[in-house]
Order: sequence, then C-alpha cells, then structure tokens
Amino acid sequence: MRIIGVDCGAEKTGYGVIDTDGSRHQLVSAGIVRTNTAEAFEKRLNVIADGLRDVLGAFQPGVMAVEEVFHSINTKSALKLAHVRGVAFLVAAQAGLSVSEYSPLSVKMSVVGYGRAEKQQVQMMVLSLLGVSQKFESFDATDALAVAICHGTQANSLLLSGTRA
Amino acid sequence: MRIIGVDCGAEKTGYGVIDTDGSRHQLVSAGIVRTNTAEAFEKRLNVIADGLRDVLGAFQPGVMAVEEVFHSINTKSALKLAHVRGVAFLVAAQAGLSVSEYSPLSVKMSVVGYGRAEKQQVQMMVLSLLGVSQKFESFDATDALAVAICHGTQANSLLLSGTRA
Repeated sequence: MRIIGVDCGAEKTGYGVIDTDGSRHQLVSAGIVRTNTAEAFEKRLNVIADGLRDVLGAFQPGVMAVEEVFHSINTKSALKLAHVRGVAFLVAAQAGLSVSEYSPLSVKMSVVGYGRAEKQQVQMMVLSLLGVSQKFESFDATDALAVAICHGTQANSLLLSGTRA
Repeated sequence: MRIIGVDCGAEKTGYGVIDTDGSRHQLVSAGIVRTNTAEAFEKRLNVIADGLRDVLGAFQPGVMAVEEVFHSINTKSALKLAHVRGVAFLVAAQAGLSVSEYSPLSVKMSVVGYGRAEKQQVQMMVLSLLGVSQKFESFDATDALAVAICHGTQANSLLLSGTRA
C-alpha cells in the first residue's frame, strides 16, 4: 500500500509518501511545498495545490492521510489551516484518492506509542521506523510521514480484524 | 466590471454574477452548487470546485468577492466552511481572479444600509437593486449576489477616491 501523508500549513505544507504492509514502512519521498507569504492567499493556495498535484502525479499513492485540525490552536490559525486542508482534500479527490483523518493523539500513539510526544521524538521515531539516517529539512515533512505511518498501521489492524480500511 | 460573489457552504454554495458600474447593478446569473451530504467530504469539495469552475468559464467574471468567515458560528461549522472557502479561493486563483473579502457587516451595510439586517431584508434589497422580480430558490444565491454588490459599490468608491480597488 502506498500512502501520502500531508501536514497542511499556509506557509509550508509537508508531504511524505511511504510504501507499507502495515508493520514495515519504506520511505518513497518526502518534502515540503513552500509558499511566499507576500503573495495573495488565493495564489498561495494555488501553489500548494500545484505542489501536491505534482507529488501525486510523480508517486501515485493510493490514499491520503491528514491530521485533524488541532482545536487548541487559536481560531484564526485553525481557520487558515482549514482553507489549506480544503485544497489538499480537493487535490486528493481530483486524483481519485480518498482521505483518512487522524487525531494528533492517534498519530503520536501510532508512531511513538505516547500521545504527548514532542516533535523531536516523533521525528526520531519516524526516521527509525523508515530506516532513514538523515534528518529532513523541516518538521513538516516528518509530521506528514508520521500521519502516513499512522494510516498504514491502522489500516493494517483494521484489515487484520476483518474490517475494510 | 463583472463580479462573482460566492457564499460558501458545504451543503450549498451560492454564486451570483453581476455587471456593475459601482452604482447600477445588473444580474448576469445566480444559483447554487449543491452537494450530496452522504458523499465523502473530499468528493463534495470536488463537486463545489467543478460547479464554480463551470460558472467562471461560462460568465468570465473579473474578480471574486466572498464574505469573511463569521466567527460567531460554532468552531466546527466555521472550520468546515473554511475548507469550502479554500476551494473557492483556489478555483479563483486557477482562473486568474483575485479574491476580495468583506465582513458580513460591510455586506449588509452596502446592500441594506443597516448592519444587522435579516436575510429577508437582504434578499428584498438585492432583488430591488438588480430590478429582479422573482425570488431565487435559496438565500445562498441572494447572499452571493449581496457580496458581489458590496464589492461593486466599494471598488467604485475606492476608484472615486483615487485608490485602486
């Protein structure tokens, strides 16, 4: 199963593509789509859409996984983030992918086994699970890989328990 | 100047296209894009994107106007709405249009002259300003026309005062 995880953000949207059988995960590609904060918001959304579309085209994942909006961040930031999520969802649908959402707690539990893990711990575990020695430029790429791993793990346990993911 | 106003909503997204010189407004087209609530959210966003893209293609407005997110609605609804707005902004950018945002207060002041006007009053004034006798099927179309009229009026007064809209 090939999964793309997306960590939405207006400035930087991280993506991480993995191949997984649910327990062993392999890195395919990861990176960020960066936007110019001096540009109009609609143009920045277009840059994000183009960037994600290129990644889907290049690596052909079968499903997209994203984190749910984190309600404890302030409302203005959450609303901005939701615009970017709308764009990511749209790009997925246009490519025929379904989108699965996971709470930040589920993602951390899947990857670190501890729901209140720090970004550094998530990064370390993501790199370890993927057998990658080099750190990524940004936490956004690692966070995207984390949600992809979360989907891989949970989809696998649903399959094992006889429920379709 | 040809303006499209968009009233974003996950179930029904209203649109209204007008021609205006800033004081006289003429209806070009108005309607709603309806989505199936039984479908996955990403598919519904795709339906909205396709619908708006068709309207832009058919009527070729030069600018898009939308209402700012109304903070007093509950957070969950506001976040859902923001996903749809992200899609509307993206469709605008892909068609080369800029997006102007107006507070609900500005829209009501522009159209009714009273910031706490009810939906029925907005509808009546929109129909009157456009010289249209027949009510639209949905308030969403009228609300979209209202924000288009608001942009037309404000862009005109900015032009008159020597500031570029």
